[in-house]
Amino acid sequence: MTDSWATFGADLHLEPVGTGLRSGLMAALREAVRSGRLAPGTRLPSSRALAADLGIARNTVADAYAELVAEGWLTARQGSGTRVAQRAAPRRPPDPVAPRTRPARPRTGHSLKAGSPDVSAFPRTAWLRAARKAVTAAPDEVFDYGDPLGRVELRTVLAEYLARARGVHADPERIVICAGFVHGLKLLGAVLRGRRVRELAVESYGLDLHRDLITATGLATPCLPLDELGSRTGELAGMRGTGAVLLTPAHQFPTGVPLHPDRRAAAVDWARATGGLILEDDYDGEFRYDRQPVGALQGLDPERVVYLGTASKSLAPGLRLGWMVLPRRLVGEVVAAKGPADWMSGAVDQLTLAEFIASGAYDRHVRSMRLRYRRRRDQLVTALAERAPGIEVSGIAAGLHAVLELPPGTERPVIQAAAFQGLRLEGLARYRHPDAPPGRDALVIGYGSPSESAWTGALDALCRVLP
Amino acid sequence: MTDSWATFGADLHLEPVGTGLRSGLMAALREAVRSGRLAPGTRLPSSRALAADLGIARNTVADAYAELVAEGWLTARQGSGTRVAQRAAPRRPPDPVAPRTRPARPRTGHSLKAGSPDVSAFPRTAWLRAARKAVTAAPDEVFDYGDPLGRVELRTVLAEYLARARGVHADPERIVICAGFVHGLKLLGAVLRGRRVRELAVESYGLDLHRDLITATGLATPCLPLDELGSRTGELAGMRGTGAVLLTPAHQFPTGVPLHPDRRAAAVDWARATGGLILEDDYDGEFRYDRQPVGALQGLDPERVVYLGTASKSLAPGLRLGWMVLPRRLVGEVVAAKGPADWMSGAVDQLTLAEFIASGAYDRHVRSMRLRYRRRRDQLVTALAERAPGIEVSGIAAGLHAVLELPPGTERPVIQAAAFQGLRLEGLARYRHPDAPPGRDALVIGYGSPSESAWTGALDALCRVLP
Repeated sequence: MTDSWATFGADLHLEPVGTGLRSGLMAALREAVRSGRLAPGTRLPSSRALAADLGIARNTVADAYAELVAEGWLTARQGSGTRVAQRAAPRRPPDPVAPRTRPARPRTGHSLKAGSPDVSAFPRTAWLRAARKAVTAAPDEVFDYGDPLGRVELRTVLAEYLARARGVHADPERIVICAGFVHGLKLLGAVLRGRRVRELAVESYGLDLHRDLITATGLATPCLPLDELGSRTGELAGMRGTGAVLLTPAHQFPTGVPLHPDRRAAAVDWARATGGLILEDDYDGEFRYDRQPVGALQGLDPERVVYLGTASKSLAPGLRLGWMVLPRRLVGEVVAAKGPADWMSGAVDQLTLAEFIASGAYDRHVRSMRLRYRRRRDQLVTALAERAPGIEVSGIAAGLHAVLELPPGTERPVIQAAAFQGLRLEGLARYRHPDAPPGRDALVIGYGSPSESAWTGALDALCRVLP
Repeated sequence: MTDSWATFGADLHLEPVGTGLRSGLMAALREAVRSGRLAPGTRLPSSRALAADLGIARNTVADAYAELVAEGWLTARQGSGTRVAQRAAPRRPPDPVAPRTRPARPRTGHSLKAGSPDVSAFPRTAWLRAARKAVTAAPDEVFDYGDPLGRVELRTVLAEYLARARGVHADPERIVICAGFVHGLKLLGAVLRGRRVRELAVESYGLDLHRDLITATGLATPCLPLDELGSRTGELAGMRGTGAVLLTPAHQFPTGVPLHPDRRAAAVDWARATGGLILEDDYDGEFRYDRQPVGALQGLDPERVVYLGTASKSLAPGLRLGWMVLPRRLVGEVVAAKGPADWMSGAVDQLTLAEFIASGAYDRHVRSMRLRYRRRRDQLVTALAERAPGIEVSGIAAGLHAVLELPPGTERPVIQAAAFQGLRLEGLARYRHPDAPPGRDALVIGYGSPSESAWTGALDALCRVLP
């Protein structure tokens, strides 16, 4: 028996630093019980014997035993010594591997999927500099439970930035920080449901993720026709059950059309006449190439439009930071929808973004990325003109993606051919609303997403698969 | 007319850097429309005239006008010049101040409310050091949309830490990062509802916030009696509709009793016999003073117990970082409950915490805070013995709070007297489950929450109001 215990002792991983010998012994004993090496009911050696085997103090072993009794692993009864508890060995069913809902991006090949910026350009040094300044200067209460609206420092800086850069009518008290656009959309869906709205109209083309989320909050998503002037907002007047509409006015996603001034006006007219709410998804409003950005629709009527912005395209999706500029009457309801479970984003990131914007680093980063994306757009247009002259490209005045028209019937074959060659592409069809009429064949090319080093190869691979 | 325009021009804030003259002019024009200084229908001066007034290039004004037409602020009709659009001036109702759900902590006086650590001790320098190392070394994909389980770096480090420090049976694939305990509880509530569970039993004393959240997910919260050995988990067997139970085994919140080994065993027995689920809220398991921490209940049966941990007590609530160690069969369901809206916490914070733990800084911080809190606990006990010898104190073996027994009928008067003197206290009654029998009069004293400089004053203020 002593021999086997000595062997057992040699197996133990006794971590000498940190939590010490006792915790190392406890961990080893737990693992031995868990793995079945120590069966339920097994009598353990006396603390004196095990201590001698292991060359450690007897008290250390005695304390470990006592702790494990307190935890329920062992039992100690007068006269029968210390034993492994009957219930300490869980029955372990064969473990199926848990399903994973978001498979990782493939590591090999190229992707020209729209929706992500070039994350290799994340301004790490400038971000860390902002973090250092923000964290060093922060009042202690930053680290405590905080304001569900978000840090006031960030809301103040955003109000100034959004007014200046996007024509948003913003003050800090009507801004709510959220964990990206989708989080904001979910909160607004809950608010609309609470106001007994039954339908939130969406554009004919958009992300199924957004439509599904709206549906999950209990709202129907009728769709608004789209033409070369953008979504036909005039038709909202005829949609009786619709209490809100989700639009991408600056750069329709994914077709790239900016919403025509008349259509902007029609949307606001509708909202005023019916008490409806406009949700403005300004996902890439900073990236306009051929002239100044088109200002936000929200500025036309801040009491009828919710402006939703995000750091996901301008900086990085991984930050999980977005913001809503709300009609005043909705601020309380949105905060209530946040509830106690997701009332705030991480305070350090919020303060860091505030400092990043206030220092001018945000403007510099956006300018630098605008140049990069514009150059890629130009390279795309040039390459297409040379190597696929039959392909028309549109939606290129802004943003991180373009639409490439394809001959009828070729969208799916082109995507499949690309996949065979390790290039991930997406067709326009996957963005189409189920109720929208069948549309043209086209590709949605996210030229913003590759790293600089991958971009040329991705563009070349694209040209090779085009008809 | 020219005069008034010159005056108007002088009012403009033309920001010469960054976005330039044009955007400054646009912002000023928008504001003039918004404020009513420029009424709908007003004809604007020609671009030539305004340019002359302002001393800027005519093209700048013409471009600004064109942009504002595109945005819907102005209209330009052949022959009638540029006018303020009819719909550009929103009707602005008097703005009621939005209700705020979490009033800020009072700035004056002291608070001995339980639930927060001493946030003045947040290890800013060490945190920034970890952030620098983590962000510098991170692969690019960190900044992209990520894994809903959380960053693998953090899950890997947590698995090792939780096994070592808390006896948790953890592997990275069963850990899900969340935005604090309450977020995890909300996700688990959704999973339980999806499994048609109707009741989630809670302890007789706990946070109403947690009970309300569970109720909001559609689950009833029957309560489990509590005595000097902890919650009477043996009674679960008689609660037929109950499919899950929420426990604080290491240090009952707020009474401070650790769950007795027999009670631990009874909970696991119940879970095994009925297929029930145990939610283990290990909110302050790191802070045990008189002996090693009692290991987590989860280790006894990882397929029946969800372990919930948080950085809110050990580091700072403002980080919004927590973690769940799940039975394997629940991982997919929890990820599905996260959905697209809150599938991940900020990647930078996650990586920073991973580095913070891996470097040993977390252990060092916990040790240092354990000493600080233990000293405060000892000072509390000493001060009570000297200045309020009739008051019994309990729940002091661990954690950041203690329970002070009061003579019957004095709980509310003592709290009110304290409030008059600028000291915020909370009674045991506010933690009592509505269905629990009336209990003793007592105070729950959060000695962890004040800063070092405030602590002595807070303790003195407490002693002055005690009977």
